[in-house]
Amino acid sequence: MRPTVFALLAVAALSGMVADTGPASGQAEGEAAPIFGITIPPGYREWKVIAVAHEEGKLNDLRAILGNDIAFKAARDGQLPYPDGSIIARLAWSYDPLPESAKAFGQPQSFVAGPPKNGVQFMVKDQAKFAATGGWGFAQFDNGKPAGEAVHNACFACHAIVQARDLVFNRYAP
Amino acid sequence: MRPTVFALLAVAALSGMVADTGPASGQAEGEAAPIFGITIPPGYREWKVIAVAHEEGKLNDLRAILGNDIAFKAARDGQLPYPDGSIIARLAWSYDPLPESAKAFGQPQSFVAGPPKNGVQFMVKDQAKFAATGGWGFAQFDNGKPAGEAVHNACFACHAIVQARDLVFNRYAP
Repeated sequence: MRPTVFALLAVAALSGMVADTGPASGQAEGEAAPIFGITIPPGYREWKVIAVAHEEGKLNDLRAILGNDIAFKAARDGQLPYPDGSIIARLAWSYDPLPESAKAFGQPQSFVAGPPKNGVQFMVKDQAKFAATGGWGFAQFDNGKPAGEAVHNACFACHAIVQARDLVFNRYAP
Repeated sequence: MRPTVFALLAVAALSGMVADTGPASGQAEGEAAPIFGITIPPGYREWKVIAVAHEEGKLNDLRAILGNDIAFKAARDGQLPYPDGSIIARLAWSYDPLPESAKAFGQPQSFVAGPPKNGVQFMVKDQAKFAATGGWGFAQFDNGKPAGEAVHNACFACHAIVQARDLVFNRYAP
């Protein structure tokens, strides 16, 4: 390849990385999570919404379940099992009352997403690579750093509750 | 128009609607909402997530606040006021307990998005066109049909509570 062409491609790649995709932009970076060896997928914050949820109890968060294009389409179309290449991201934020709406309604009314909380989790589908855990690899990152091995050992056992939905708790929110 | 051509167009229109982007796919269609004249923006279900929230009380829903590219970037970068061309979509779903997780935790734990609820709302930024309402036009659709005039008359007064945030209740969830 001629140097000019290469330079142009490099610029194009760089601008794609920097431009629009936020903190998880560009090539996969950072340390891989234990057991499954998953790194933070680039651009996940801009993926499409599969569903939203609220966890009570100790978790006490608001969360969004996003999917890369493969996972989003499978979720939307009700395709089970999810095909290889599917990645599902679970983002979560502090569960914060919104003072302006409490004031307007005269009672607690709106709860909105505050700062990030409970880390970011990913499920990566690869039937061959993750055959021992239902075809899914699991990863959690807290402030960009992989959580420990104990956390990652717990994923599959809990997700096995929803075996009938290919280990995915959330359904597509239409 | 000849019947064959009409049939082909009808098929194209149908497949466009069914294919990839859900109910708001393809060109803007359907009835405009009263007062502000807004129609459902194509493809909004696939827009990026600005924030998520839970409403208590009578609303009792889980919601996602999505933005078209202009609105998403402005929200992410904390750009106020939102630039012309911004569209923010508020989707909402029934606030449903997840039986599998209640069983696993021995108490109510996870609340997930059920069927659509409380309609879909849009805020459209156009400083010139919507000068009388802070530069925003407002619209609500219930099952794809515009809500009545009374609903649309209430939008601006309520959003005026968050004047300091350019009438947008939700902040970007990082």
